[in-house]
Amino acid sequence: MSVAAASVQSAIDELRALLGERLSTSNGVRDHHSKDESWHIPHRPDAVAFPLSTEEVSEIVRICARHRTPVVAYGTGTSLEGGVIPEHGGVVVDLVNLDKVLEVNAEDLDVTVQARVTRKQLNDYIRDQGLFFPIDPGADASLGGMAATRASGTNAVRYGTMRENVLGLTVVLADGRIIRTSRRARKSAAGYDLTRLFVGSEGTLGIITEVTLRLYGLPEAIAAAVCSFESLEGAVSTVIQTIQLGVPVARIELLDDVQMDSVNRFSKLDYPIKDTLFIEFHGTGNGVKEQAELVQAVASENGGGEFKWATRQEERTQLWTARHDVTYANKALRPGCEIWATDVCVPISRLAECIVETKKDLKESFLIAPLVGHVGDGNFHLGFLIDRNNPDEMKEAERLNERLVMRALAMDGTCTGEHGIGLGKMKFLTAEHGEAVGVMRAVKKALDPLNILNPGKIFSV
Amino acid sequence: MSVAAASVQSAIDELRALLGERLSTSNGVRDHHSKDESWHIPHRPDAVAFPLSTEEVSEIVRICARHRTPVVAYGTGTSLEGGVIPEHGGVVVDLVNLDKVLEVNAEDLDVTVQARVTRKQLNDYIRDQGLFFPIDPGADASLGGMAATRASGTNAVRYGTMRENVLGLTVVLADGRIIRTSRRARKSAAGYDLTRLFVGSEGTLGIITEVTLRLYGLPEAIAAAVCSFESLEGAVSTVIQTIQLGVPVARIELLDDVQMDSVNRFSKLDYPIKDTLFIEFHGTGNGVKEQAELVQAVASENGGGEFKWATRQEERTQLWTARHDVTYANKALRPGCEIWATDVCVPISRLAECIVETKKDLKESFLIAPLVGHVGDGNFHLGFLIDRNNPDEMKEAERLNERLVMRALAMDGTCTGEHGIGLGKMKFLTAEHGEAVGVMRAVKKALDPLNILNPGKIFSV
Repeated sequence: MSVAAASVQSAIDELRALLGERLSTSNGVRDHHSKDESWHIPHRPDAVAFPLSTEEVSEIVRICARHRTPVVAYGTGTSLEGGVIPEHGGVVVDLVNLDKVLEVNAEDLDVTVQARVTRKQLNDYIRDQGLFFPIDPGADASLGGMAATRASGTNAVRYGTMRENVLGLTVVLADGRIIRTSRRARKSAAGYDLTRLFVGSEGTLGIITEVTLRLYGLPEAIAAAVCSFESLEGAVSTVIQTIQLGVPVARIELLDDVQMDSVNRFSKLDYPIKDTLFIEFHGTGNGVKEQAELVQAVASENGGGEFKWATRQEERTQLWTARHDVTYANKALRPGCEIWATDVCVPISRLAECIVETKKDLKESFLIAPLVGHVGDGNFHLGFLIDRNNPDEMKEAERLNERLVMRALAMDGTCTGEHGIGLGKMKFLTAEHGEAVGVMRAVKKALDPLNILNPGKIFSV
Repeated sequence: MSVAAASVQSAIDELRALLGERLSTSNGVRDHHSKDESWHIPHRPDAVAFPLSTEEVSEIVRICARHRTPVVAYGTGTSLEGGVIPEHGGVVVDLVNLDKVLEVNAEDLDVTVQARVTRKQLNDYIRDQGLFFPIDPGADASLGGMAATRASGTNAVRYGTMRENVLGLTVVLADGRIIRTSRRARKSAAGYDLTRLFVGSEGTLGIITEVTLRLYGLPEAIAAAVCSFESLEGAVSTVIQTIQLGVPVARIELLDDVQMDSVNRFSKLDYPIKDTLFIEFHGTGNGVKEQAELVQAVASENGGGEFKWATRQEERTQLWTARHDVTYANKALRPGCEIWATDVCVPISRLAECIVETKKDLKESFLIAPLVGHVGDGNFHLGFLIDRNNPDEMKEAERLNERLVMRALAMDGTCTGEHGIGLGKMKFLTAEHGEAVGVMRAVKKALDPLNILNPGKIFSV
């Protein structure tokens, strides 16, 4: 047994004494925690711990720190860049038992939840108080995981991302200390913004165990519409002009013709197989009407058809479920395939150009890749349908992704709008941030000197 | 000459070789850079440098680092907690020449400015493109200084603070390296959020030389109103209910009766000497009308009078100028006095209680302190009128401030909503953040190991 393996074994022995049956080394459990929803190659942890509280997470981290054993936090396993894959083995901390809503402050429009509460669970919990939490990455992810990934999704164009909507965090540090990053005041100028430092840190600086979030009153009126376009440029121009006019659309999503075909098949719908926008408006009755008329006018000028409305709750649910199911729809196009989801985001003035050039690349490739995007933010995804064991396909996906990322960077954009760096974007981090990566590394070394927290993610230390 | 003094002198010699006449050691210039707008005791720097570019700032910092000489960045000197006072001497870097708007991207609703561009200068520059930058701390502060302080002000209730409105920064690090914290994409999940780390770091982690900011289209309609109340509780309840109803007010400011008296005298106005709200609405014509009707109804239920409207630009300017001049108005109440501005912020559900208890304290005190607040955020200020040389007054202000801060902390609030820690709030930082201050300290040590950047601010290292 190597020294490393011996020390992991010592950690496991101590953890077993602490957790009893809530520590598992079974193959089934380790397999389940070896992967996420991406194409990245799974890697098994040595053990999986199931703590019941922040204090227990702290104890686990203390033990792992003593034995220099990697610790990887795990929520719902829905990451898309290998963020939760324990590349270096060690202990996965599955937060599944941290699933309580701790405190709803309806008057202050905030809530504190344990990290494994999912966004749907939260919304079910608060709906009858007339409140909702808008951030919606598609998957029913855990709110701790969404914070760790700086997730966003369809509503970000109106409500912002996790960056804007996390008010504070409880975090277990690399040495087991427990901190609270902020109090509940809406704003503060008291010291460094630790909340934002941990949001998006992908488990490499600490383990998030509680999250305080902003909530919103359910809008008086909500209406959603589908609009088909004669051209992709027309659809994208509609988005750009809508944003530039300052219309506070709640959602504005682009699905290209390939994606619409996939959605129709999977969700048994009959939308035209055209480049399409899914749009949602929130506001007062009059406000929604005003917004909708304005956007319809813009769409018509850009070759868009009449809005097909979904005003009743069930129709809207059907529409957004179809949107959220695109990954499953795409997988169904080629049974057994993996989806490699790209994730660039560019300034909106460059969005049309970026998408058009990308589609040109795709036309010349043998890979199939539906396009879907949170285009109001300048963010869009391709979903490469690939066989991970086919080197030609992997190479081609890599080539196309690299061209896409470099194109986005050249347009002052980012290699990841919302999926995070994880394993998949590490090689682009310096291309994007240059010298600033040195600052990130210095922060990592200061807060996790033993490099035990999700090691090998974001950058190699 | 002590070792420290000798090394400062060596730094000055090298800086003079670099900058020539753009380095000053004259008493007048040093005096001017010894203070801010607060009651804090001035302290002279050894020299003041006037760089022309980010690269020159970098050179200055490299020289100071070599000689372990403190470097304090200086914008407009309008800080309120001693943030720019060079407590430990050294070199003040006055960024007055970094005053260019570098790039307006109207289509992307963003702008990049050098750090010393002030908010009014920016708004004058972009107005004819139909754009504006909302963050408004009262003073015509530099945008770099506002970023460094995590400033906010009257519009934060609608548009957020500098935290939400800075898209990226150019920063000179403690060793002279120059980094860009982010690209122009609206969102990104690429690594640690360095932008937010430097926003609010008060010059202790780096010197901000360029700022990329979000812009907004000028609203189609703007209307402002003044509403007097029979009681302070009525005014505060109106604010709380307005926020809870989700009305997107652009500004909602409370001025108590003492403050209104002061404003009337200074700005030659004749508002009733009552607890008063100044409110502004932004939106479409109909939207503004809807919002205004709703808030008027809420106000009426809480003992508020009829709205007195200011719809024309000149009337609005008069109204907000009067609001922004409260500090000068208060100084005029007692010629020669200093203003000690407090700055707590609490969850809005606790705001009425916090204000009422605070006013009780004031009633029992011999100090006069008008109250004004960005109450939509839960943030309010007292302005103690004090003679800094009178120990009894200082002691009393300190006592009242400490009671106020502790009250806010007990309500899950913060000791500073927008003025920063600077010198004045250092003693409350641990009370507010506990163990988390250790993380801040670790970050500071990692990024400024020699402790040359604005030393002695936020915490002692």
